[in-house]
Amino acid sequence: MASKRIYEFEEGSQEMKSLLGGKGAGLAEMTKIGLPVPYGFTITTEVCNEYYKFGEKFPPSLEDEILEHLKKLEEKTKKIFGSSENPLLVSVRSGAPVSMPGMMDTILNLGLNDLTVEGLSKLTKDKRFAYDSYRRFITMFSNVVMGIEHKNFEEILEETKERFGVKSDAEIPFGGLKEIVDKFKQLYKKETGENFPQDPYKQLMMAIEAVFKSWNNKRAIEYRRIYKIPENLGTAVNIQMMVFGNAGYDSGTGVGFTRDPATGENKLYGEYLLNAQGEDVVAGIRTPKPIEELKNDIPSAYEELLRIKDILEKHYRDIQDFEFTIEKGKLFMLQTRTGQRTPIAAVKIAVDMFEEGVISKEEAVMRVNPYQVELLLHPMIDPKANVKVIAKGLPASPGAAYGKVVFDTDEAALRGNNGDEILLVRPETTPEDIHGMVAAKGILTARGGMTSHAAVVARGMGKPCIVGCEEIKIDMNGEFFVSPDGTKISKDEYITIDGGTGRVILGKAPLIEPEISGNLEKLLKFADEIRKLGVRANANTPEDAKKAKKFGAEGIGLLRIERMFLDPNRLPIVQDMIMAKTKEEREVHLKKIVPMIQKDFEEMIEIMDNLPVTIRLLDPPLHEFLPQRERIEDEIKSLKENNGDIEEIKKREKILKRIKELYEHNPMIGWRGCRVGIVYPEIYEAMIEAIIMAGINLKRKGFNPVIEIMHPLVAHENELKILKDMTDKVAEEAMKREGIEIKYLVGTMIEVPRAALCADKIAKYAEFFSFGTNDLTQTTYAFSRDDVEASFLPFYIDKKILPENPFMVLDIEGVGKLVEIGTKLGKESNSQLEVGICGEHGGEPASVKFFHKAGLDYVSCSPFRIPIAKLSAAQAVVEEKFAKKEAYSDSR
Amino acid sequence: MASKRIYEFEEGSQEMKSLLGGKGAGLAEMTKIGLPVPYGFTITTEVCNEYYKFGEKFPPSLEDEILEHLKKLEEKTKKIFGSSENPLLVSVRSGAPVSMPGMMDTILNLGLNDLTVEGLSKLTKDKRFAYDSYRRFITMFSNVVMGIEHKNFEEILEETKERFGVKSDAEIPFGGLKEIVDKFKQLYKKETGENFPQDPYKQLMMAIEAVFKSWNNKRAIEYRRIYKIPENLGTAVNIQMMVFGNAGYDSGTGVGFTRDPATGENKLYGEYLLNAQGEDVVAGIRTPKPIEELKNDIPSAYEELLRIKDILEKHYRDIQDFEFTIEKGKLFMLQTRTGQRTPIAAVKIAVDMFEEGVISKEEAVMRVNPYQVELLLHPMIDPKANVKVIAKGLPASPGAAYGKVVFDTDEAALRGNNGDEILLVRPETTPEDIHGMVAAKGILTARGGMTSHAAVVARGMGKPCIVGCEEIKIDMNGEFFVSPDGTKISKDEYITIDGGTGRVILGKAPLIEPEISGNLEKLLKFADEIRKLGVRANANTPEDAKKAKKFGAEGIGLLRIERMFLDPNRLPIVQDMIMAKTKEEREVHLKKIVPMIQKDFEEMIEIMDNLPVTIRLLDPPLHEFLPQRERIEDEIKSLKENNGDIEEIKKREKILKRIKELYEHNPMIGWRGCRVGIVYPEIYEAMIEAIIMAGINLKRKGFNPVIEIMHPLVAHENELKILKDMTDKVAEEAMKREGIEIKYLVGTMIEVPRAALCADKIAKYAEFFSFGTNDLTQTTYAFSRDDVEASFLPFYIDKKILPENPFMVLDIEGVGKLVEIGTKLGKESNSQLEVGICGEHGGEPASVKFFHKAGLDYVSCSPFRIPIAKLSAAQAVVEEKFAKKEAYSDSR
Repeated sequence: MASKRIYEFEEGSQEMKSLLGGKGAGLAEMTKIGLPVPYGFTITTEVCNEYYKFGEKFPPSLEDEILEHLKKLEEKTKKIFGSSENPLLVSVRSGAPVSMPGMMDTILNLGLNDLTVEGLSKLTKDKRFAYDSYRRFITMFSNVVMGIEHKNFEEILEETKERFGVKSDAEIPFGGLKEIVDKFKQLYKKETGENFPQDPYKQLMMAIEAVFKSWNNKRAIEYRRIYKIPENLGTAVNIQMMVFGNAGYDSGTGVGFTRDPATGENKLYGEYLLNAQGEDVVAGIRTPKPIEELKNDIPSAYEELLRIKDILEKHYRDIQDFEFTIEKGKLFMLQTRTGQRTPIAAVKIAVDMFEEGVISKEEAVMRVNPYQVELLLHPMIDPKANVKVIAKGLPASPGAAYGKVVFDTDEAALRGNNGDEILLVRPETTPEDIHGMVAAKGILTARGGMTSHAAVVARGMGKPCIVGCEEIKIDMNGEFFVSPDGTKISKDEYITIDGGTGRVILGKAPLIEPEISGNLEKLLKFADEIRKLGVRANANTPEDAKKAKKFGAEGIGLLRIERMFLDPNRLPIVQDMIMAKTKEEREVHLKKIVPMIQKDFEEMIEIMDNLPVTIRLLDPPLHEFLPQRERIEDEIKSLKENNGDIEEIKKREKILKRIKELYEHNPMIGWRGCRVGIVYPEIYEAMIEAIIMAGINLKRKGFNPVIEIMHPLVAHENELKILKDMTDKVAEEAMKREGIEIKYLVGTMIEVPRAALCADKIAKYAEFFSFGTNDLTQTTYAFSRDDVEASFLPFYIDKKILPENPFMVLDIEGVGKLVEIGTKLGKESNSQLEVGICGEHGGEPASVKFFHKAGLDYVSCSPFRIPIAKLSAAQAVVEEKFAKKEAYSDSR
Repeated sequence: MASKRIYEFEEGSQEMKSLLGGKGAGLAEMTKIGLPVPYGFTITTEVCNEYYKFGEKFPPSLEDEILEHLKKLEEKTKKIFGSSENPLLVSVRSGAPVSMPGMMDTILNLGLNDLTVEGLSKLTKDKRFAYDSYRRFITMFSNVVMGIEHKNFEEILEETKERFGVKSDAEIPFGGLKEIVDKFKQLYKKETGENFPQDPYKQLMMAIEAVFKSWNNKRAIEYRRIYKIPENLGTAVNIQMMVFGNAGYDSGTGVGFTRDPATGENKLYGEYLLNAQGEDVVAGIRTPKPIEELKNDIPSAYEELLRIKDILEKHYRDIQDFEFTIEKGKLFMLQTRTGQRTPIAAVKIAVDMFEEGVISKEEAVMRVNPYQVELLLHPMIDPKANVKVIAKGLPASPGAAYGKVVFDTDEAALRGNNGDEILLVRPETTPEDIHGMVAAKGILTARGGMTSHAAVVARGMGKPCIVGCEEIKIDMNGEFFVSPDGTKISKDEYITIDGGTGRVILGKAPLIEPEISGNLEKLLKFADEIRKLGVRANANTPEDAKKAKKFGAEGIGLLRIERMFLDPNRLPIVQDMIMAKTKEEREVHLKKIVPMIQKDFEEMIEIMDNLPVTIRLLDPPLHEFLPQRERIEDEIKSLKENNGDIEEIKKREKILKRIKELYEHNPMIGWRGCRVGIVYPEIYEAMIEAIIMAGINLKRKGFNPVIEIMHPLVAHENELKILKDMTDKVAEEAMKREGIEIKYLVGTMIEVPRAALCADKIAKYAEFFSFGTNDLTQTTYAFSRDDVEASFLPFYIDKKILPENPFMVLDIEGVGKLVEIGTKLGKESNSQLEVGICGEHGGEPASVKFFHKAGLDYVSCSPFRIPIAKLSAAQAVVEEKFAKKEAYSDSR
C-alpha cells in the first residue's frame, strides 16, 4: 500500500483538497473549525487512480480498510450498519479536486434494505419516513449505480399519486410508499436481471465503484477536455452518516451562499425545502422557498445558519456556497466550497471584502478573474430590460448583438457588407462561411461545441456567438427556426444573442455599452497601485483615442497610419501615388496627403496630451490600396463591350498593369512595412514630416506632445539604421525650419523572428521596441492568419493538437521564447530601451502575465480590453510576490 | 606619434602584411631570406588612415621621418637624392593589405630632374638611357599624380618616332628623347598651369600623397564594395632604390609564376622584355617574350631565376607571382605574392604540392576555394574548342549556356516555356522580366553590376548570367546587338555565354558536363578523410539518384514526394483525390497512386542500397495540384459561349469551386505540409504504405534499404506525436502482413521558427531532424521567396542593406541562431537524434562551415554541389583545428 487511503473527516483539512477532493476537504475543514458536520470519512483521489491502474478493480485490501472505517463510524454514531434495530445509514458522494459536473453526485440513505427499513421505522416511530427514505434510496441507487432511467421511477410515482388522489410526494400515505418500494424493486429486477441488493456492504461497494467509474463517463471526459483538467486528478469518495431532512416538517434541506452570488450583496442567500432530501431541491419538482422564510419555519435553524455564515466567511475569507440539512430542528452542514459568482458580484465582493477589512488589496485583485471582467466590457443586454429568452446554447464568444436572422451565408455577406444588421444562423459553420461571419453582427449555430469552427472563428473576430443551441430546430429550406417553446423565427426577424451567457432572445433587446464605474473603477484603482506593466491602447481614430482615455489608457501604443489612408477623400490620392512612375511624381501626391493626416495626428496627440502616442508608419503592401483586380477587369470588359470611352479603358488598363506588377503570392511576407519605406523613402519621409509637424504645432499651442515613431517589419539592423537616419533628418529639418524643438523617440516593431533573434544589434538604433505578436505568431508558426483560421486551425484546436488558438492566447513556449530573447538582448544592448507589445495578446490575461514576467515595460490593446490588461498585470505582480498561482483558479 | 610609421625592408616580414601591405611585406620577407631586393622602406597603412584623419593632410612630422629614412637609403646605396653627380632615384609604389586593382600603381625613376638627369647621364655614360628614364618618369608622374591622360604623351611619342623614322621606343635616338622630355614638360605646364616639379623632395611628397589619395578613388571604392573589403585597411607606400631594366640589352624586366597559373603545371612561367622598364610590360606596347627565351638572352639571370623560384616555393609553400628586373645582367626581385590561379590549376597545385611533400593533406584542402570548385561543376565550354569571343562582361552567375538571342521578355517567356532554347538579352532587367528569365537558358545584360537585379536573380535561379557587358550595343527596336568587333547578332541567332568568365561567344560553343576525376577526385578524397559532416544529395528521380551517387553522395537527404505526383499519368488521379468529398472517396484514388510511387521509391532506394534515403511526405498545399484558376474560368467561358457540353461545364465548375475553397492568401504559410496529412490522414498513410512496401520488397530481394520518413512543416510537438504514431501503425501493419521487418526512422523537417525554438519537445518524437533552411529563411525573415526576390530583395542586396542574399548564403546571425538553438535543444533532449540540413544552403561553402560548427551530422544538397559541400566540410575541420581562418582568403 502506497499511502493512507482513507481519512476520517477529523484527520483532513482544506489544504488536502487534491487528495480528499473539494467536497471531502470542505467537510474536513468544517469539522476542524467545529461546525456541525455529520461523521464520515473520505476515500482519497489516489485510490481512484489505483482503481484504474488495477484494470477497474479495487486495489487489494481496500475493502478491508473501508470496513475498518465503517466500524469507527458505527462507534461514533452508536449505530450499526445493516442493523434491523438501530441501522446506520450513509450517503456516498463523489468529490474531485476540481468541481466537475457530469460525475456521479450523491446516493442517500444507503444501508436501507427490507430489514433495516423496518428498524428505521421502529427507531423513528415513523413508518412513512422510513419507506420514503427507502424508495428514494432505490431510485438513486438504481439510477446512478445501474443506469436505470429516472423517468421509469417517476412513472410509478405518478401512477401511485394519481391512484391515491394526492399531488405531492410528501402526501403519499405509507401504504402507497410501501407499494412503490415493491414496484421499484420489481423494476430494478426487470432492468438488471438481479434482485435489488439487500446486503448493505454490497450496496456500499457498488456505490463506491460507481463513483470511480463516473470519473471516466462521457460527460466528465468532455468537461475535462474543454476545461483542460488533467485526466489523472481522480475523484475522492465521501461516506457520511445520514441526517434526514425528510424526517417531518421540523426538518428540511437547502443550499446557501454567504453573499448574493448574482449581485455580490452581503447577505445570506439561498433556498430550502421542508421535509425533503437533497435530491428534491436538485430535481426541481417542488419549488424551494427563499432562505428568509426559514426564519418563520424553523427559527433556531435560521439563527444557526446566520452564525455559521459569519464563521464560514471569517474562516474562508471568500464567498461560500454550502449545503445543509435540518433534522428535527438541528442544523447539519454537508458541504462548503468557494462560491461561483457572476462577474458583477465578483467585482463587488472583492471590493467589499477589502473595505470590510477581510482581505488585502492584493487579495481583492486576485479575487476577480480577468476573463470575467471581459464579460463586463462587451455590450451587454440591459439587466433591467424585460427580455424573452427563447433558447439557450453554449456561450462561445462574449458580447451581445441583435440583427435580422439570415440563414444563407452569401446573402449574409452581401447584406452585412452593405450595412444591414444581420445575424447569421446556421446548423454549423465551415470555412466556406467565413465571409458571411465577417459581415454578420453575431453568429448562432445549432450544433458544435466550445471549440467548433464557429466558436473558434467568432472568438478570433471578437464577435458574439452562441454554438450548440440544439434546442432550436432550423429549417434551412423554409428559412426559419423554431424555439423549444414553439416560437417560429423567420428570415429577417430580429433576435438578440448574448454570447456571454448563451441566451437567445426574441426581438431587439436593449443593449448597454460597457463603462468603468463604481466597484470596477475601485478594483482597477487597486490594480493600478499594484501593477508594474504600463497599459496603452491601440487606437487609430480620435474616437478610439477618446474611448481609450475613458478606459484608462496610459497612452497610445499603436496608431496604424494606413487607416487614415482609407478615407474616401484620400484613397484616390494614395492610389495616384502608387500609380506614379517616378519619385518626383510620388512626391507630388504625397504633398497633398501630408496636411490631411497631420490634422488627424494633431487631434489624437492632443487628446493624449502628456501621454505617449506611438505611430506606426505604413505597414500593408501598396497593392492593398488599389482596387480589386477582378473589379477592374470587369470594368474594362464592360467598357469594351459597350464601346466605352477609350480614355477610361486606358486608365483602367494602367491600373490593372500596376496591380499585376505589385501582385504577390504571399503578401503577408512580401513587400510591405519598412521594406516599402526603404525602397520608396519619400513615402515614409512624408509621414514623418506630418507627424513631426503635428507635434510642432501642438507644442506651439502649449501642449506637451510625446511622440514615438515606429517602423514596422524590421528584420535586419541595417534597415532600422537607414530609417532612424531618415527620421532624424526629416525631424531636424522641420524643427529647424519651424524654430521649435520637440522630443520624439524612434523605434521598431519586433514582429519577425529574426528581429527578436538579433535584437541586440537592432537595439543600437532603437529607442523602443514594440512586439507585434500577431505577425510574430504568423511567422513563428508559419500560420497565415487569413488562411489557417479558415482551414486547419479550428481542427487543430478541436483535436487539442494546439492547446489554444495562438492568435488569442500567446504561445508562450514558442512565440513567447522569442519575446524573451528579444527583450533580453534588446535591454542588454541598450539599457534605455523601452519595450512594449501591441496587438490583441496585450489584452489577454495569460499573455499579459507572461509579458510582465518577460520584463516588458507596457502592453497595448484595444481600448475595451484595458481593464482586463490592468487587472492581469496587477495579478502578475501578486502572483510573482506570493507565488499564489492557484489563488483564483477555483473561480475560473 | 602613435606607433612606428616607417619600416626599412630589413625590419619587416610577411606576417606584417596588414601594416606594410602585401607588396611591402613581400619585399621585407624576400630581403629577410636573402633574395636580391633593392634597398628601400615602407610607410605603413596606418599612416594612410592618419592622412584621412587629418583631413587629407600628412600627419605632423611625417615628412621629417621620411627624410630620415631617405638619408639611410642614401647611406646604403651610396647615392644622393637630388645629386647632379651620383643621383639616387627611387620607385614609389602603393601596397594595400589586400590586392586591390584601381589604386595608383607605380612611379619609377623619381628623383630625376633637369639636373639629376645629367648626373645619371654622366654616371652611366649613357645619355640616351638617362633621358629615356626621365621621359618615362614625367609620363608616370603626370599621369598618376596629376591625372593627365596617357594618350597625350603617346601622341608626342608617336609623332617623334615618325619624324625620326623609327618604330620602337628603344630606337629613338638621344636627340629625339631630349625633344620629347621638353615637350612632356610643356604638356605638363599646359595641363596643370605649373612647371614640372624640379625639387626631388617635392616629387616624392606629391607621389606619396597620390598613393594615399588613390585609396579613395572611385574604382578602389567600388572594388572594396563588391569584395567586401573594409574601408579602414588603408594602403602602405613603398619607396625603393631604382634598378634599371632599361640600361641596355643586358637589362630587362618581367613577371613570373613559380608554376603555370592556368594549368597548375610545375614549371617556371612568365614573360619579360629586354631593355625596358616595368610599365612597358603592363602597357602592352611591345610584346613580351616567354620566359624560356631568357635562357638565351641573359643565361645567368635565367639560372638565377630558376634558383629563386625554388627558394620562393620552399619558403612560401604556395605558388608565387613575382616581378623582377635585370640591370646589366644582375637580377633584382621587386615583388612576390601568392599567385592567382584558375580553378583547374588550384586543384592541381594543391594535389601536386601534397604529393611533392611540400604541404599536408589539410593544407591541400585549404588551398582550393570551394567557390572555385563550383566553377568546375557547371557545364563548361570545352577548353579544347576553338571559340570566337565577341565581347566580355561581368561574370555574374557561373555556368555556360547557348541559345537563340531574344530581346523581348514576353517572347522569351513564351518560347522558352515551349521548349525553345532562348538566351534573354536586355539592356538590364527589372522585376517585370522575371518570367522571361525563368524560361531562358541564360541572361546577358549590357548594364548593371555584380549585384544588379539580373545578377542577383540569375544566381538565385542557378542560371548562367553575364551583366554589365557594356561593350555590346543593343538596338531594341531593330532586335539586334553589335559587338565591339562589329559583329551584328540578330534575334534568333545563337550565342553562348560563359557566366563564370564573362565571355560572350559567337554561335553554339561545345559544352562539356562536369565530372569528378583526376586531381579533383584526389582532392575530394583528402576532404573525405578530414571532414566530419556527412554529405547527402537532394534527389527526386532515379536519374538524380544516379548522378548523386556519381558525385559521391552518402545517401539522399531529401526526396520530395510531390515531384512524383506531377507525372501526367498520375496528376489526374491526384486531382480526383483532391476533388473527393469524403475520406472513403479519397482512399479510392490514393489506392491507385500507391503502387505507382512505390515503384519509384524502390528504384531509388535500390540505387542507394545501404545508404539512407530520406523521403519527405507531401509538402505543397493541395491547390498546387489543381489547374490554374484562370485556365478553368476561360474554359468555362469558352464552353458556354460555344454551347459546349453541359457535363463538361459542370465538371469544370466543380473544379473551380474546389479551387476557390482551397484558395489561400498566403499559401506559403497556409494549409500545407503535415497540416494536410493531419487533417486528411489517409493521404499520408498512403504514402507511408508505399514507402514501407518499397523497403519490404527490396529487403525480400536481398537489398539493405535504409529508410527515413520525414514529416514536413511541423511546428508543435503534438503534430509529430500524431504523425509518428501514424507512421509506426502503418509500418507495423505492413510488416506484419508481409512477414518482413525493415528498419526505418521517423523524423521531421525543422523549417518554421517555432520548431527550432521548441526542438527539445519535438525531439521526443523524432529520430532525426532535417533543417529546411529555405523555408526557415522565409519565415525567420518574413521573406516570401516567390515575391521578395522579384521586388525589394535585389535593392536590399545592391544597397548593402543585407550583406548577402539569405537564400544563397545562410543568414548565420538570424536563421543560423535558430539552427544552433534547434540542434542544441534537440540533441540535449534526445542524444540519439540525427540532425541534418537539406536545401541549397547545404552546398554553399560558408553555410556548410557554419553547419559543421553548429554540430550537425550531415548536409544535403543538389548532386552537383556535393564536391563543394565536401571540400567546405573538410575546410571547416581544418579551420577549427588550426584556427587558420585566413589561410585561403587571398586566393578568393
